Amino acid sequence: MTVRVAVAGASGYAGGELLRLLLAHPEVQIGSVTAASNAGQRLGSIHPHLTPLADRVLADTNAEVLAGNDAVFLALPHGHSAALAAQLPPEVVIIDCGADFRLESADNWTHFYDTAYAGSWPYGLPELPLAQGNQRDALRGATRIAVPGCYPTGITLALAPALNHGLAHPDDIVIVAASGTSGAGKSLKPHLLGSEVMGSMSPYGVGGVHRHTPEIEQNLARAAGQPVTASFTPTLAPMARGILATSTAKLVDGVTPAQVRDAYLSAYAAEPCVVLLPEGVWPRTADVLGANVVHLQVTVDERLRRLVAISAIDNLTKGTAGAAIQCLNLSLGLPELTGLSLAGLAP
Amino acid sequence: MTVRVAVAGASGYAGGELLRLLLAHPEVQIGSVTAASNAGQRLGSIHPHLTPLADRVLADTNAEVLAGNDAVFLALPHGHSAALAAQLPPEVVIIDCGADFRLESADNWTHFYDTAYAGSWPYGLPELPLAQGNQRDALRGATRIAVPGCYPTGITLALAPALNHGLAHPDDIVIVAASGTSGAGKSLKPHLLGSEVMGSMSPYGVGGVHRHTPEIEQNLARAAGQPVTASFTPTLAPMARGILATSTAKLVDGVTPAQVRDAYLSAYAAEPCVVLLPEGVWPRTADVLGANVVHLQVTVDERLRRLVAISAIDNLTKGTAGAAIQCLNLSLGLPELTGLSLAGLAP
Amino acid sequence: MTVRVAVAGASGYAGGELLRLLLAHPEVQIGSVTAASNAGQRLGSIHPHLTPLADRVLADTNAEVLAGNDAVFLALPHGHSAALAAQLPPEVVIIDCGADFRLESADNWTHFYDTAYAGSWPYGLPELPLAQGNQRDALRGATRIAVPGCYPTGITLALAPALNHGLAHPDDIVIVAASGTSGAGKSLKPHLLGSEVMGSMSPYGVGGVHRHTPEIEQNLARAAGQPVTASFTPTLAPMARGILATSTAKLVDGVTPAQVRDAYLSAYAAEPCVVLLPEGVWPRTADVLGANVVHLQVTVDERLRRLVAISAIDNLTKGTAGAAIQCLNLSLGLPELTGLSLAGLAP
Amino acid sequence: MTVRVAVAGASGYAGGELLRLLLAHPEVQIGSVTAASNAGQRLGSIHPHLTPLADRVLADTNAEVLAGNDAVFLALPHGHSAALAAQLPPEVVIIDCGADFRLESADNWTHFYDTAYAGSWPYGLPELPLAQGNQRDALRGATRIAVPGCYPTGITLALAPALNHGLAHPDDIVIVAASGTSGAGKSLKPHLLGSEVMGSMSPYGVGGVHRHTPEIEQNLARAAGQPVTASFTPTLAPMARGILATSTAKLVDGVTPAQVRDAYLSAYAAEPCVVLLPEGVWPRTADVLGANVVHLQVTVDERLRRLVAISAIDNLTKGTAGAAIQCLNLSLGLPELTGLSLAGLAP
Repeated sequence: MTVRVAVAGASGYAGGELLRLLLAHPEVQIGSVTAASNAGQRLGSIHPHLTPLADRVLADTNAEVLAGNDAVFLALPHGHSAALAAQLPPEVVIIDCGADFRLESADNWTHFYDTAYAGSWPYGLPELPLAQGNQRDALRGATRIAVPGCYPTGITLALAPALNHGLAHPDDIVIVAASGTSGAGKSLKPHLLGSEVMGSMSPYGVGGVHRHTPEIEQNLARAAGQPVTASFTPTLAPMARGILATSTAKLVDGVTPAQVRDAYLSAYAAEPCVVLLPEGVWPRTADVLGANVVHLQVTVDERLRRLVAISAIDNLTKGTAGAAIQCLNLSLGLPELTGLSLAGLAP
Repeated sequence: MTVRVAVAGASGYAGGELLRLLLAHPEVQIGSVTAASNAGQRLGSIHPHLTPLADRVLADTNAEVLAGNDAVFLALPHGHSAALAAQLPPEVVIIDCGADFRLESADNWTHFYDTAYAGSWPYGLPELPLAQGNQRDALRGATRIAVPGCYPTGITLALAPALNHGLAHPDDIVIVAASGTSGAGKSLKPHLLGSEVMGSMSPYGVGGVHRHTPEIEQNLARAAGQPVTASFTPTLAPMARGILATSTAKLVDGVTPAQVRDAYLSAYAAEPCVVLLPEGVWPRTADVLGANVVHLQVTVDERLRRLVAISAIDNLTKGTAGAAIQCLNLSLGLPELTGLSLAGLAP
Repeated sequence: MTVRVAVAGASGYAGGELLRLLLAHPEVQIGSVTAASNAGQRLGSIHPHLTPLADRVLADTNAEVLAGNDAVFLALPHGHSAALAAQLPPEVVIIDCGADFRLESADNWTHFYDTAYAGSWPYGLPELPLAQGNQRDALRGATRIAVPGCYPTGITLALAPALNHGLAHPDDIVIVAASGTSGAGKSLKPHLLGSEVMGSMSPYGVGGVHRHTPEIEQNLARAAGQPVTASFTPTLAPMARGILATSTAKLVDGVTPAQVRDAYLSAYAAEPCVVLLPEGVWPRTADVLGANVVHLQVTVDERLRRLVAISAIDNLTKGTAGAAIQCLNLSLGLPELTGLSLAGLAP
Repeated sequence: MTVRVAVAGASGYAGGELLRLLLAHPEVQIGSVTAASNAGQRLGSIHPHLTPLADRVLADTNAEVLAGNDAVFLALPHGHSAALAAQLPPEVVIIDCGADFRLESADNWTHFYDTAYAGSWPYGLPELPLAQGNQRDALRGATRIAVPGCYPTGITLALAPALNHGLAHPDDIVIVAASGTSGAGKSLKPHLLGSEVMGSMSPYGVGGVHRHTPEIEQNLARAAGQPVTASFTPTLAPMARGILATSTAKLVDGVTPAQVRDAYLSAYAAEPCVVLLPEGVWPRTADVLGANVVHLQVTVDERLRRLVAISAIDNLTKGTAGAAIQCLNLSLGLPELTGLSLAGLAP
């Protein structure tokens, strides 16, 4: 099988990572590669690391260009996907790396975003344990898929087994996560300059105002079978890639550490992309760089009766572009990990 | 006044920072500078950044050498301070940067450390708001002072006002902090190599096993006037210095954000070393590098009714050596900030 | 074809990178994975980034274990390869990532190393333009290959075309290069601690004493057809991977910039792993991370009549493990780039 | 003495460093603090590390505001100093941190800059050994001083003794330097984003086109007493501050390493800000962070007969703001190092 795959919004970091991964995908031919203000430029001047694609020229992002592909990845600023998707034929597989189709609640969307609510698509996190049904089933053969946000991926997978098994309370979840700067994109903002970022940790979006909060809660609610509320504090770390998330929840009375571990083992035993590390070993973001994998560990702080789960992902790979390709594979009926690596680039 | 001040354990990072700060202290003459295995070496080969002291030779750490000084800073591995302190004359001011005299509970000590409990000394955090009494009073003129640990400094000051004013519950505190690698000292461990650390975030001591946990709880209990339990997760960040701590606590029913802010304003209005930033501005570790200052912000996550307080310190300055000099000044009756800078080195 | 490939010395950084690349090689089955002091450990505890190999246990490095493989990569400290190679059957392909078989001059070896000279093997830099013959021919079907050092790879390819075409003088070459810390290996030395490395640039091995100097000169002499002398200054940069080398040579009278560019274009037009960037674009190490590629640019500083060539490589990939796999492919008659990526991991 | 000192252009990195140092200067009162587009903002929102100045509001940069100060530091984009300086009274000390008054040759200026040549002021590098005269004498009591560029400071001091003593040829000097990103200022350019900079080394301005080239040559010519030409390659390193420069020159026949060392010892024996390290010890940028000091080492690569001198400075301190304050002290007749630290902030 050779599938012609387009990347719309190829000049951003997510677009670049999609292309990097597509180069290694044996069943894919890279089709249209498009951008907005960067249209007309050589890809080599935008993503000099993509050596084999250096002489490709970025086309303009529009439906006419994209329609000639079997599948299209959208890596656009929020609010741009719906209009474009509406103009593409139904048989073209569309996998949206943006936020537009992730939220099932119009209220949540309008509370956190400034554009019109566009509805929701199947949510591209096949490993999510659900109170009802199977998330992977919703993705097999789907032609419209919403790729999860980077923070929600690592955080959801870190807490879902405990909530899914009724081991933790859903109403006092506390999450603190550190992200590499690529999560903030390529925007030219003073606080993202290298001089500001290197040697510094800083928080942002504190107090429940980060846009990934409703997505995290939506995911966890689907795992728990009941509403979930979480306090989420994201921080910016002096590294280009990677998210380390510390997620804690109050344990239900009587739950033992062994029950917790069993819940995690059973949730992910058959999931190659979610690795529960041996007891006592904690994840590091360096170990998952460029890999479509989550490294995960969980323990219980007995004195407070809190579960502490820590996950590491690469925000651009399992956090965005790798997940998108995993979704493409599910959509097309290919082996789910085709073209994806589970080994990170370290040191 | 010229005070002759010794640094015992000068070859470590805390010792180096003490010397850097003492060089700028107008009332101090640097006296004995000692080490254990590094005795006999030029200081220039251990701390090449201390240019003016490069040709000093490290003496051996022993009571005879140290007794000839007016004041002695101890920057030793835990378990070494008590024996040495016992051999020094009572009029020599001893300021211990290690853990040995911080904990008031012998049980806590023996649970977390492997040496004999040595008792406790006045705790060198003058800004700590207490349920009863005034911490600064305990330090004025004291000749034995225990300098706080680096994590406890930033975390305690971030939560103490809320607990001191009865605004937050003391029994479900969740703290996640990121520290630069100098906090782990100069020990030659594989996970501290530059190749491992750069580009990576990693947790350690998860689940209530970090030795700073009882110190944090002790401090907060003194602010709250009742026992406090906290879940503390430290992480290692790809930077040499700095701690960013996110500390959260459940608010008492009915407490408003305005009450929270007032509590913090009143706690620190007269404290030059603890800066509550303007609303909406969050601290960055880069801004406090080399400075004897805490940058602090607090907000309320209304949906969970959790207070979220974030503090940034330099683990080696306000977190160790700067605090030690602040204590020396209090001991000697000097203006408290003599020789200390509140401006960080940025970018 | 499925080739069973062993990695001896798998616990170091070169060994880890070999395994990472072998996981992606479609014609290879990973055979024996061995170590010295780390034998018996899980690979997951040594290289946690190699998720798919986490449960492999390191065997002891010895000829008996290694003999059962079709090919063996040696990633050992210098001085250990010869004895081991002598015990392996001649039909086992041996590709040595260490220095032992690189130098053709026993005098050079004994001047720079403290072990006995072991002779030389075909030198695994197929792209090296020679005054006589073709380096790639020496590698096709070879069963003993010496992989180039990391610095020599980038530097040789940056200067060889000019010397090969007689455009530059061979006797006053000046090279300054910056390397990531992984080039220094995993050894537990104080100057390699993260706290020391981050935020700092430092030189080492200045004044012609670095062991890669004779290898650089040997390579360039083979390109020039005459002896070459070079002053080489390596520096350590605050990054885990990558080498940026600035290599300069005095131009022969009358040589024009256009002649220089033509020489480089003709040298590398057919070499996919050596990319001469468009004029005015300079290489960055980030763009070649994890890739088996050299990014290269050259210009002329007219006032001094010096050629300035700048190259970027990943010291562990094209600088070591990627080159080793390229050599394996040549040895086995596979397409030269099988299993190798030319796209870097950025940002 | 209390001198009222203004900083014009306070919102940039040089301006911030000037203020950081002025806070520690015992004879100075910080006067006007001005900016262009940032006028009206709180200093705390621009330079949050300057805690004691957080509530200062930036005034507009104009002569009226500045005239009320005893001394004015200009930290402006090039081309802006002359017009402003012309409007200030002659008795106001003006110390220009920009390039405008550094070059003595109008031709050099117009070749490298796009604004009108403004002439030259006494050059603020008191340690520069001259073929004729004494540079420090030109600065004592001067009311107009041009502060050296950051690269020229470290490079000039690394080569000047050899040229001054006639030990090295002036016509084939090769320099490669690595700078932290703060040297590029706060401009919002994509290649300066943290995601691009971290983990990467990259060159720029290669081939004699960097604006600091004529300044380096001018300085070295004054030391040599004859014209000097140099090939200068600057690179950007993944760190916020610091410059490591490797400077090489061809030795004159018959010159011995001992003569070289003697020349450097005699040049700097009485200069506290230029430290020739003990033989075999090489400088690191981390050791000079925030310090008004150059760490320097020199050796001879005998095979090529090249002198290799390596210097480390902080581009913002001895490279800009520290030098400016050193000049202020010379201008005012204060002890030259008043308010300056020679100890770096490490680790």
